[in-house]
Amino acid sequence: MKSWLNGAIIDADAAKIAPNDRGFLLADGLFETLKAAEGKILHCREHLQRLRRSLTVLKLDIAQDDDMLESTMYLLLAENGLEHASLRLTVTRGTGPRGLLPPETNVPTILITCSPSGREPTELPPARLMVSEFRRNEGSPLSRLKVLNYLDNILALQSAKADGFDDAVLLNNAGHVACVAAANIFLKRADGTWITPPISDGVLPGITRRSVLDLAVQNGLNIEEASLSSDGLDQVQAGFLTNSLINIRPIAAINGRVLSGELPVFLSDGRVV
Amino acid sequence: MKSWLNGAIIDADAAKIAPNDRGFLLADGLFETLKAAEGKILHCREHLQRLRRSLTVLKLDIAQDDDMLESTMYLLLAENGLEHASLRLTVTRGTGPRGLLPPETNVPTILITCSPSGREPTELPPARLMVSEFRRNEGSPLSRLKVLNYLDNILALQSAKADGFDDAVLLNNAGHVACVAAANIFLKRADGTWITPPISDGVLPGITRRSVLDLAVQNGLNIEEASLSSDGLDQVQAGFLTNSLINIRPIAAINGRVLSGELPVFLSDGRVV
Repeated sequence: MKSWLNGAIIDADAAKIAPNDRGFLLADGLFETLKAAEGKILHCREHLQRLRRSLTVLKLDIAQDDDMLESTMYLLLAENGLEHASLRLTVTRGTGPRGLLPPETNVPTILITCSPSGREPTELPPARLMVSEFRRNEGSPLSRLKVLNYLDNILALQSAKADGFDDAVLLNNAGHVACVAAANIFLKRADGTWITPPISDGVLPGITRRSVLDLAVQNGLNIEEASLSSDGLDQVQAGFLTNSLINIRPIAAINGRVLSGELPVFLSDGRVV
Repeated sequence: MKSWLNGAIIDADAAKIAPNDRGFLLADGLFETLKAAEGKILHCREHLQRLRRSLTVLKLDIAQDDDMLESTMYLLLAENGLEHASLRLTVTRGTGPRGLLPPETNVPTILITCSPSGREPTELPPARLMVSEFRRNEGSPLSRLKVLNYLDNILALQSAKADGFDDAVLLNNAGHVACVAAANIFLKRADGTWITPPISDGVLPGITRRSVLDLAVQNGLNIEEASLSSDGLDQVQAGFLTNSLINIRPIAAINGRVLSGELPVFLSDGRVV
């Protein structure tokens, strides 16, 4: 498999990162994960827009424009002969001296990798979730960005798997539902209303999450962005997860309580474009 | 300068990290920063003990025992001809395939680097602090470990510097004082009592923090581990910062309000061993 690193296509095995890269030492960077299907990168511009917004928060500039990044990702798919793939675009602040403070001038590290697509979303069974002890940090602006740090989510997922679940629900410090380890969550409350947690609850503004919200409006269904307490979670009737790779995945059960498996009518084919 | 990477001493420039190292991609790892003075690594065993406790939380095993890690750090100092230095010991989960879940078997990446000591603590002027908008995530067990993710702290520090301050106070989501970007904090409350935030407020259990608490007991002074609200912070009389590299640094002012600069009597020489 080939990768693209700082301007060059190289064998993935030959690509190397400097040990003083601030991405490696301090998680000083961010990324996007994109899906390619039938040779087309899905929602490429939305991902790049989100990347730009995040770079601004990190006060990090890159020389490449969106056209260049997009064409590089297509080039990489072609070099690897892949039509169905997941792509990862990683940007870090590059190398720096010891200490937290970034150097006055920096050359970002940009890495693009791809791998053949895994299982299609329709092959994944509905998810059995547990509620994790790990909390989302709604008090940090970074909880709304796709930054490198996934260790809370990794450990939450690892614990869930060890206990026989498929994934972990993360609450925030206020006790509101935020997301699962690597997906947004939609839930049908006891009152019959579909909701998804607002970004302010420490939620990544997922591209697929946005598609679902937009499609709901187009179909005359109101999905509220509303906080849900863990008590409210104990009473939800149904739910599903979204991200760019799994698309839509129904929730089978939460903490062992079986849900209906129902999806909103406009998602009845189990997919969102 | 030489580094030690996965068993070998190599030129720092030649050391390379694989781009699919989970430390780089997902911040799946942790580290320790140690100070060497006059050829001796200070509190080496305490740092290694903290590392072991953190490795357990991350469910991460390494083959090297403490004797081996300690002797390697001394070897590295000797190879670089350094008597005064800061050392960094980084451990990640090593490489893995795409996705959050760690591989069933993994070979951790272990990197040890060193650099000549920077300015001595006594050269640093008292710190002018501002209160950051970034919050510590007290709801995550990782807020008590020295994990790779420092991006909240980096951005908090960067903003503080841009606004003419030396460092940033981070509150947690409950509004309690936790720490500054890379140091613990001790504060003298309006009632005259010295306190430091408890670990449960999202605080790294600093080695120097522990030394100060222990020395206080030996000197008959009670320093409470007690939460302090931001209202309480507005009324503190004095304060200081601690970490393994700066040792003790008095606080000059918080949000422009000048403090007394006083230290507890037992720290009157401005140092703790």
